[in-house]
Amino acid sequence: MPVFPSRRVRETPFTPGVRAAGAKAFTVYNHMLLPTVFESLEADCAHLKRHVQLWDVACERQVSIKGPDAERLMRLISPRDIGRMQADQCYYVPCVDAAGGMLNDPVAVRRGPDHFWLSLADSDLLLWALGVATALGLDVEITEPDVSPLAVQGPKAEALMERVFGPEVHDIRFFRYRELPFEGRTFVVARSGWSKQGGFEIYVEGAEYGMPLWDALFAAGEDLNVRAGCPNQIERIESGLLSYGSDMRRENTPYECGLGRFCNSPDEFIGRAALAREVANGPKRIIRPVEIAGEPLGTPTNVWPLFADGRQVGQVTSVAFSPDFGVNVAIGMVDRSHWDAGTQLEIVTPDGMRQALVRDRFWN
Amino acid sequence: MPVFPSRRVRETPFTPGVRAAGAKAFTVYNHMLLPTVFESLEADCAHLKRHVQLWDVACERQVSIKGPDAERLMRLISPRDIGRMQADQCYYVPCVDAAGGMLNDPVAVRRGPDHFWLSLADSDLLLWALGVATALGLDVEITEPDVSPLAVQGPKAEALMERVFGPEVHDIRFFRYRELPFEGRTFVVARSGWSKQGGFEIYVEGAEYGMPLWDALFAAGEDLNVRAGCPNQIERIESGLLSYGSDMRRENTPYECGLGRFCNSPDEFIGRAALAREVANGPKRIIRPVEIAGEPLGTPTNVWPLFADGRQVGQVTSVAFSPDFGVNVAIGMVDRSHWDAGTQLEIVTPDGMRQALVRDRFWN
Repeated sequence: MPVFPSRRVRETPFTPGVRAAGAKAFTVYNHMLLPTVFESLEADCAHLKRHVQLWDVACERQVSIKGPDAERLMRLISPRDIGRMQADQCYYVPCVDAAGGMLNDPVAVRRGPDHFWLSLADSDLLLWALGVATALGLDVEITEPDVSPLAVQGPKAEALMERVFGPEVHDIRFFRYRELPFEGRTFVVARSGWSKQGGFEIYVEGAEYGMPLWDALFAAGEDLNVRAGCPNQIERIESGLLSYGSDMRRENTPYECGLGRFCNSPDEFIGRAALAREVANGPKRIIRPVEIAGEPLGTPTNVWPLFADGRQVGQVTSVAFSPDFGVNVAIGMVDRSHWDAGTQLEIVTPDGMRQALVRDRFWN
Repeated sequence: MPVFPSRRVRETPFTPGVRAAGAKAFTVYNHMLLPTVFESLEADCAHLKRHVQLWDVACERQVSIKGPDAERLMRLISPRDIGRMQADQCYYVPCVDAAGGMLNDPVAVRRGPDHFWLSLADSDLLLWALGVATALGLDVEITEPDVSPLAVQGPKAEALMERVFGPEVHDIRFFRYRELPFEGRTFVVARSGWSKQGGFEIYVEGAEYGMPLWDALFAAGEDLNVRAGCPNQIERIESGLLSYGSDMRRENTPYECGLGRFCNSPDEFIGRAALAREVANGPKRIIRPVEIAGEPLGTPTNVWPLFADGRQVGQVTSVAFSPDFGVNVAIGMVDRSHWDAGTQLEIVTPDGMRQALVRDRFWN
């Protein structure tokens, strides 16, 4: 099922490197190509856990919010307490509508007192921010800048990054950033990334620096066994990293997604009343790790329903077979009545009915 | 370059039919699969011009705007005069930001006095409408309903539609609709579609009706040589049908896109002042049909720059070789200095420099 070429589905500054490295499949994310497999899901996962990989995650497009009203807008569209955000900080922010429904779960990067980037999951959150700002007449400029994140992930990420950006990388704390030099420019380098194997995200400002940086990191990491990789479906499910559009959508609240701890704003943000009601009542359903018995299963293209005593009590939205744990690992959304760890459920898969176990914790 | 499966990139109600019909490539459009080729671009185009095709265009997702303030919101986000929209009418509406920049070019469908659908091009315009409505506290519900357009296109579309929906289809005027029955439901059936070969779009409400309708149309049209098709890259370029994201983006105004005639609203819509300035000054550049000399060219994945005397004067964003016209047909955006019909330019393609001719009119 090949992807048809067009300008609308954008290539990234790193696409030449990704193609040369032999990407075998892609998805489309924020109107942009995102590689999904290089050798195989299993081999990519094993390598990620032992070495270091470069990930073309340029599709994490930035929404730049800049101007005198930038912080005011951020406080309005963020359930998280923006007032406490430090100058070098990245905040994971579940963005919600007035009913508390998830619109995106970006990472906000504070670029200055009056300047923020939102590093997006897969929806045009720019249009939400722009709609709110336009209707309120806020003095703020909202654009998609020429900024393309490149992730360096895996246990040897630190060693590789030091060789290219210097020892200062060791001082970057989790979800903090520094501006570090590369070929006469400085890039935001944050300790973050969509795996639990450790690493950094480099916000490459200026598409023309993409391949030079890609090549520099490859050249510096040869003896570290660096290779091209991408967000890995197995590792991210083991780690409980949610994918907006797959595991949660506008019909879900941050509390259902286990993201309640990021909803601590004292401001009058959009969705405040709805989220307060959700706290008072408790969510009806919640994201849970689910272990599915039997032979390895493929990736769902739609929900797989969970049943108990013939009644649907939830759904599974992401599945992969984990070689390390020897089971099918999955992310589900389970009703309150059946969300306790240890609950045995049944799941309808394209390969027939299977046993499914609600777990206490994700695997990584 | 296969598409990796996920729930995030959604299948449509017609996907089983599309796969069975042998779709060879897909793109992703509004987070949903859109087939792009069945036999070949050339064979698909020739068939479309002679027979009738069913197109899975479910990816034209609907934004439903419903409630007491629905028309107020529509007047705010539409440069087109919504006050003149009849009860059975479809309006092509270039939606713009405060600077007049294109955000999408949906077809608005008036479903009632207080109810509209926006049938989208490829951007989450729901978030724009929702942002504006939320910030202003409008009394309106904005959702993505379970509505999936199925297009029936080609010269025999009328004959096929009559067999399934009855002779009333003949009475549907261009960009008007009727609600016609199918298996105990009624669907909006409009005379519209993303080709110039004539036909209809059926707004299938309820995913479970997708394949029954698909199958009914196939069964009824066997002697009409009905087959599965899709928006065809050759035919749509010959016809000058623009693709949002490829041929125009937020950096373009409707006047640059040749869509000025759709900006006639007397209301205080968003972007009004900017568009008035554009009218006063005239656009700096405009969409033009461009003929590229030489051997057949492939599809651009990025802009191909147009040059005159060594200076860039425009760009081409969509290209296909047209067997019927025997040339490479293309859609370009050309600066005022060089947009006159008959102007000879040079274009940089992946196959080298070619001659390019600015034409007066598109081919179909």
